[in-house]
Amino acid sequence: MIASTPEFFREFPSVSLDSDKLQTPCLLLDEGKLRANVKAMKTHLEHLDVVFRPHLKTAKSIDVARIAMTTPQGPAMVSTLREAEYFGRNGVLDLIYGVGITPNKLPRVAAIRTEGIDLAIILDSLEQADAIATYVSRFNDPLPVFIEVDADGHRSGVNPHDSSTLIAIGKHLLSNGAELRGVVLHAGESYALSNPTDIVAAAEAERIAAVTAAQTLRTAGLPCPIVSVGSTPTARYAKDLSGVTEVRAGVFMFGDLYQAGVGTVAVNEIALTVLSSVIGHQRSKGWILIDAGWMAMSRDRGTAKQKIDQGYGIVCDLNGQPYADLILVDANQEHGVVALRKGSSASLPELPVGARVRILPNHACATAAQYDSYHVLNSSNEIRTVWPRINGW
Amino acid sequence: MIASTPEFFREFPSVSLDSDKLQTPCLLLDEGKLRANVKAMKTHLEHLDVVFRPHLKTAKSIDVARIAMTTPQGPAMVSTLREAEYFGRNGVLDLIYGVGITPNKLPRVAAIRTEGIDLAIILDSLEQADAIATYVSRFNDPLPVFIEVDADGHRSGVNPHDSSTLIAIGKHLLSNGAELRGVVLHAGESYALSNPTDIVAAAEAERIAAVTAAQTLRTAGLPCPIVSVGSTPTARYAKDLSGVTEVRAGVFMFGDLYQAGVGTVAVNEIALTVLSSVIGHQRSKGWILIDAGWMAMSRDRGTAKQKIDQGYGIVCDLNGQPYADLILVDANQEHGVVALRKGSSASLPELPVGARVRILPNHACATAAQYDSYHVLNSSNEIRTVWPRINGW
Repeated sequence: MIASTPEFFREFPSVSLDSDKLQTPCLLLDEGKLRANVKAMKTHLEHLDVVFRPHLKTAKSIDVARIAMTTPQGPAMVSTLREAEYFGRNGVLDLIYGVGITPNKLPRVAAIRTEGIDLAIILDSLEQADAIATYVSRFNDPLPVFIEVDADGHRSGVNPHDSSTLIAIGKHLLSNGAELRGVVLHAGESYALSNPTDIVAAAEAERIAAVTAAQTLRTAGLPCPIVSVGSTPTARYAKDLSGVTEVRAGVFMFGDLYQAGVGTVAVNEIALTVLSSVIGHQRSKGWILIDAGWMAMSRDRGTAKQKIDQGYGIVCDLNGQPYADLILVDANQEHGVVALRKGSSASLPELPVGARVRILPNHACATAAQYDSYHVLNSSNEIRTVWPRINGW
Repeated sequence: MIASTPEFFREFPSVSLDSDKLQTPCLLLDEGKLRANVKAMKTHLEHLDVVFRPHLKTAKSIDVARIAMTTPQGPAMVSTLREAEYFGRNGVLDLIYGVGITPNKLPRVAAIRTEGIDLAIILDSLEQADAIATYVSRFNDPLPVFIEVDADGHRSGVNPHDSSTLIAIGKHLLSNGAELRGVVLHAGESYALSNPTDIVAAAEAERIAAVTAAQTLRTAGLPCPIVSVGSTPTARYAKDLSGVTEVRAGVFMFGDLYQAGVGTVAVNEIALTVLSSVIGHQRSKGWILIDAGWMAMSRDRGTAKQKIDQGYGIVCDLNGQPYADLILVDANQEHGVVALRKGSSASLPELPVGARVRILPNHACATAAQYDSYHVLNSSNEIRTVWPRINGW
């Protein structure tokens, strides 16, 4: 009897969070908040006249993807080839695999493309372009390629001012029969920001880097039909996207405490929580022990670097309302230690063994990856269905 | 084509780590090191004349469990009811579920026990003992129960000197038809130590707490056949376990960089690594980018609090030899940033795109949980088979 499977919920189509039938820890997804977060992003990007390409790495669920995408066929971005296989076989045909390609992954890319899925890859070096040349001749497939451009020194990508490398990669790809589909950038440094003015500036810097690289390619006579940028903070705060054709974002769909610290979501807009049961108390220490440890929450402590350290998450009641100053202060593998924030004058709520709480996570991508399904809440905080998700590579 | 499935390796029974057929990131398990770690622990505990009850929460694999356990039927410890179901159905019949029980989990415990699996539970309060009373009458099952005793203030458990609570729980259980099987303790604070003298002292404190609680129960006329203690550091360093009947430990089987910092394993004894491919470079910054980010390694940064901060892991060649001063300094979801330690005078190895490296993890329990299988290495560093593992609750 593994109670947290989809089969279980087909028997019990509307399970109350109070129900003893619900095993903890499990992952709750508020569908109304998810839809509102998606709608706000889509509306914002429509006003900026760009295509929205949701990043599916946070949700890894076709049900969530269909809400986030502008059409059931995409476009969308993925972070693993397993995601490409899963979403592609579920009808998402316009995909970019957003991690620099390696030669040994190309046979798997070819197998995916043989299924009629238009999977594009990204690269940022001539040595990778060489591998693409081999691919094109071996598989007789004009593989669509994006050149990754470095928006802000965060991780990978060609420097947008390095014209010679950009042009050399572009020419090498084209001369070997690949398709040069455009440039992709990711303003990863924007995650370290926390006020709108800085994020607006990061979005503009990302746009300028993208447009600079695209112009370099076009001036050299190379095609660059798609100019793709994206990160949840810059997507949310961009004011002008002239020259950009599409924007990517992923974690905004669920939101999390880290993004609340950045300022891209309000705490009461976060769609994802972990349902947990009280398993004991250490009353002399002011501790409530719960069955959500780091395995349930992930080891992510990103908020430790922000203005407000949220521990391993904010503790809420079954309606999703935070208890005053109550956080998950520590976590072992399957044990969470709930206590008041240091210096708080609030009082500890009375939560007997077996009582349920909901924990808002630091990082939705990391927390969701600890589970194989979402328990989807309706507006009455009842579970109306279960959506499976994938993990792994 | 999802290449990292067991089916794949049945086609290719001995795959070289160099093989293009191997998709990255994936989890490598050195069977020789695993067996050596297990053998050392078993020998040590045999000398101390105690039963060894391995904790299966790290491995979550029946293949690993069969190496770790003293018999195919157990005893063993689990951290989730899903583990109890999985191991129980694979023939492990003597199990303790090591997280304080909640009333709503009892029907699932009953279902497991109905299958002939002798699953015991733990608790540390009278309110939980009340729930057990209800269980016994509802399921007509004399449920075996351990009282959890607090070894060192780490998290849960009755204070070993709180005789009245210990006796009240014991009497309440017995009078309602449950079986009082003993006491369990976990010296969780020992993970924060880093020298043998301190760990020997922590082991002795754990032993004294256990014996104290057991004597309290026995003096009151209550049974306490099993006196169970355990943590990897105290199990490894205990010198005398008089009065203790069994010891539990889990992470020692694989070892990790955190445990190396504690001093329970040498770096070259760590059995678990993540295989990853180079995906690019930022040469001006001294960065090598790889396809093992935090999703592949987990977000665990436990070594940040130790004397040597290992970043997200130590980078090794395909034989598992660490490169001088090379660590995973930062991690995004699917991107790892490899660089030399600050202040190092070593030189960056030449690793082109597509080159493979192996990363020693900070925390084996957290890293292994990101995967659904182990790629098992023989002594020639070839993959001889794949062992599946479970996750979730």
